[in-house]
Amino acid sequence: MPTHTPPVQDIQSGGDTRAVAINRVGISRVRLPMLYRDDSIACPTVGVWNADTSLPGHVRGTHMSRLARALNDSAHEIDYQNFCQLPANLMQRLDANECTVSVRFHYFIEKTAPISTEKGYLDVEVVLVAHKKNGVQRQIMQVITPVTSLCPCSKAISKYGAHNQRSHVTLSVESDDVLRIRDLVALAENGASAELYSVLKRADERHVTERAYDDPKFVEDIVRDLAVQLRGLNGIRNYRIETENFESIHNHSAYAIVESDDFPQHLLPLA
Amino acid sequence: MPTHTPPVQDIQSGGDTRAVAINRVGISRVRLPMLYRDDSIACPTVGVWNADTSLPGHVRGTHMSRLARALNDSAHEIDYQNFCQLPANLMQRLDANECTVSVRFHYFIEKTAPISTEKGYLDVEVVLVAHKKNGVQRQIMQVITPVTSLCPCSKAISKYGAHNQRSHVTLSVESDDVLRIRDLVALAENGASAELYSVLKRADERHVTERAYDDPKFVEDIVRDLAVQLRGLNGIRNYRIETENFESIHNHSAYAIVESDDFPQHLLPLA
Amino acid sequence: MPTHTPPVQDIQSGGDTRAVAINRVGISRVRLPMLYRDDSIACPTVGVWNADTSLPGHVRGTHMSRLARALNDSAHEIDYQNFCQLPANLMQRLDANECTVSVRFHYFIEKTAPISTEKGYLDVEVVLVAHKKNGVQRQIMQVITPVTSLCPCSKAISKYGAHNQRSHVTLSVESDDVLRIRDLVALAENGASAELYSVLKRADERHVTERAYDDPKFVEDIVRDLAVQLRGLNGIRNYRIETENFESIHNHSAYAIVESDDFPQHLLPLA
Amino acid sequence: MPTHTPPVQDIQSGGDTRAVAINRVGISRVRLPMLYRDDSIACPTVGVWNADTSLPGHVRGTHMSRLARALNDSAHEIDYQNFCQLPANLMQRLDANECTVSVRFHYFIEKTAPISTEKGYLDVEVVLVAHKKNGVQRQIMQVITPVTSLCPCSKAISKYGAHNQRSHVTLSVESDDVLRIRDLVALAENGASAELYSVLKRADERHVTERAYDDPKFVEDIVRDLAVQLRGLNGIRNYRIETENFESIHNHSAYAIVESDDFPQHLLPLA
Repeated sequence: MPTHTPPVQDIQSGGDTRAVAINRVGISRVRLPMLYRDDSIACPTVGVWNADTSLPGHVRGTHMSRLARALNDSAHEIDYQNFCQLPANLMQRLDANECTVSVRFHYFIEKTAPISTEKGYLDVEVVLVAHKKNGVQRQIMQVITPVTSLCPCSKAISKYGAHNQRSHVTLSVESDDVLRIRDLVALAENGASAELYSVLKRADERHVTERAYDDPKFVEDIVRDLAVQLRGLNGIRNYRIETENFESIHNHSAYAIVESDDFPQHLLPLA
Repeated sequence: MPTHTPPVQDIQSGGDTRAVAINRVGISRVRLPMLYRDDSIACPTVGVWNADTSLPGHVRGTHMSRLARALNDSAHEIDYQNFCQLPANLMQRLDANECTVSVRFHYFIEKTAPISTEKGYLDVEVVLVAHKKNGVQRQIMQVITPVTSLCPCSKAISKYGAHNQRSHVTLSVESDDVLRIRDLVALAENGASAELYSVLKRADERHVTERAYDDPKFVEDIVRDLAVQLRGLNGIRNYRIETENFESIHNHSAYAIVESDDFPQHLLPLA
Repeated sequence: MPTHTPPVQDIQSGGDTRAVAINRVGISRVRLPMLYRDDSIACPTVGVWNADTSLPGHVRGTHMSRLARALNDSAHEIDYQNFCQLPANLMQRLDANECTVSVRFHYFIEKTAPISTEKGYLDVEVVLVAHKKNGVQRQIMQVITPVTSLCPCSKAISKYGAHNQRSHVTLSVESDDVLRIRDLVALAENGASAELYSVLKRADERHVTERAYDDPKFVEDIVRDLAVQLRGLNGIRNYRIETENFESIHNHSAYAIVESDDFPQHLLPLA
Repeated sequence: MPTHTPPVQDIQSGGDTRAVAINRVGISRVRLPMLYRDDSIACPTVGVWNADTSLPGHVRGTHMSRLARALNDSAHEIDYQNFCQLPANLMQRLDANECTVSVRFHYFIEKTAPISTEKGYLDVEVVLVAHKKNGVQRQIMQVITPVTSLCPCSKAISKYGAHNQRSHVTLSVESDDVLRIRDLVALAENGASAELYSVLKRADERHVTERAYDDPKFVEDIVRDLAVQLRGLNGIRNYRIETENFESIHNHSAYAIVESDDFPQHLLPLA
């Protein structure tokens, strides 16, 4: 075994002769504790972060530890506005001209049962993405809201009953405005056959059962109703609306997607 | 850097002074192609295998590569009987007196839609476990069958409709007899509000919708009905019956478990 | 469609003629925001809860909404001691004589890099289980700590280098004493070839690279070293020690388990 | 309860007044047994399928059961060429002018250990996508190959050893030519520090340990070396090269991506 101590060389800053520019290089699956402030209340949760930068063809490697340090410094108390500042912050630390940051977390909406008014939490999944290149920033909020869907065909053709199931409505919105998770959840729930609740007493259960039967929706209906609503809002640059039904009569899902022509799917992190 | 070539020592066979016997040591998450024969037809699938042995306190390590080789040799064409021979096979290769083998895979049941008679596959998840210690063998078949459940409370208290959802019925049976996946699937489906199908035309959809409404079941009802049936069968040493409803009105599950007093849960692989 | 309003019957409290006692019935996958206090600091995280009770053979169903309400009421600020009170709390609400509660969450340990002293978080996974039946309580803390393992065989037989990889050390401890997550993490890290860190500068990277090479360990070594340590501690009723190496030279894992004779694996939630 | 039998209406074919065209509507997570033929041998595996079509603004719903029937009919014996025919096939059945089909499965490469020549399987993950719109077809093969990476920085700055770990190399290639899984696996393995094997005896273990130490690579190096190679091949319209290291010294990943300017990421299924 060698007994000398090698110098702590900076290999990453060395040159590279392959002349291949790298579109994205960074760290992923960085899990950190987080308080997310969608409103006045800071919600405890866990963020799973990705952060990357582009790299010119002549530089060997990026400085991964600076990305890790930046996330450890910044992740603890987050709202949508300071999240959107992260790419600019990281570009400065890395002396880079492009940066993408994303975080995936569960957020909790306090809900009141429709009849008993019992309180409970609904958990939704959120992905935030911010990308900055040279001077231009793009930012997306994606919210996955669980809802109930009830099949119009099953209701129409059956003497009684109708198959229904849990569904996920995924709204992804690109906007320069400040977006609120709770607004996207409310929109999604409004497009479904019925909302979900954590605590339901019997009178509530009757209410949501009848509510779903009164408002049957195909996956196609949900994405269309939501498209009509989203297109009526100001300040939205791009959107993607997806509904997936975890069918109660099949062991597979039905899904539908409506998206604007230029929706930047390449900015969303691969799961 | 050293220029000599070290000898290829057998460190694992060396002694150990800590005197701590190891209950289980082996390999896990070994993925292999597989043809499983539950009947006359060999079903293509992928097995995810675990295999381990115990190790006395005075031996440093087990021979992992022999376990890997044994699985690579044996995994390709499997039925329940030759699966159950694997622990004896591995004990011989490893010169051990205890061995546990398990495999997790998807199996496919060809089903016929109730009215249109359209054909399609239902996928179920299967775990097989065989354990041998000294001369004594124990073996378990676990099958997770997806079904529909419809809530009796929701039906009884609502003017119309009833919430229903996909559920998983997990039957785990310890028996010295040869078990067939399709028998456990048929049992599970018989205990639910309705069966699932891959292909349903409209007349079929009406049938399963009304069928579920005609036979509402709580998770408690499903496990009890299945317990009554399983207890009536010969040759069963132990059983565990679990039902989980992916509730369509909540974002959580409801579940129930009935199991025999001596069900060997420690033999089931942790997921 | 019927126009009358059915009464809001209490079907669950009705009798049952099948006379099958149910071992466990309740709710699972209940996700709630949580502040966990392992020490003086409350760590933001997300708990995924299961709660169940047993049900005598003559009662039709349990009251799921009371379980949901109890979790929504209790989950927000948790330490090990008030977690362990939950079964008693739920038994009172449900008028039951048996209850199991478990929660799975990520916890974060602030760590200091060995040379640069940069600060960063290490995330570990925790499962807490408390079970009460009649007057008797049992409680388990399980902590999954990610570490580095370096292969002694690879080091011994190779001219240079040695394969190493991320590993999971899972310590499950049953004790009547108050347990601290950070103590189980420290124990696990002490048994591995090296610790993990979120932020490492180059001097740190050299340190952990050499540290791992200086302390090679098989999965067998890790569980044995930890068994020796755990057996020396007071107040431990049962334990289970598992190490899984995500092998860098294979696409499968190696694992080893040492457990006390009466470790209550049936109390651990199936994932 | 109503006593009349409602007619089996075809609600899906009814009109729609919202005038919102749907980009994609179909079924997902359809699991089917499969024999995949990459070469002369048919490999048993399980396919997880998505299939969708676009829907004009004036039609209420698509015919999900036709998609399910088409997959059940076509999925059993697949090679790349007949997979690529599926969109045309489905467009005919659905009378549609756009269709996307994708399937995700594990494939197995038989490998020979470098010194002992022991045989064993390496499992890789594959996604195939074919999209047809009007007369134009696009098709992608994505292969995730597990490999070993060894860190150049860790090697250079440490007296001995170097951290290494399992990595995933994901190659996604759009081409009009027939692509072979084994060619993309060989390419990926060639770009890494070392290959993985299922069965390695001690002499093999020495070989791969030294091989990795002799060829250290950052994630940046792997994607660059592969970009140079892929750019030299004929018949490739677009490509995306991603490497993810499951770092053995951190509990997060490092990753890098090089992709061609027009890589159609919107065609890849979201996991």
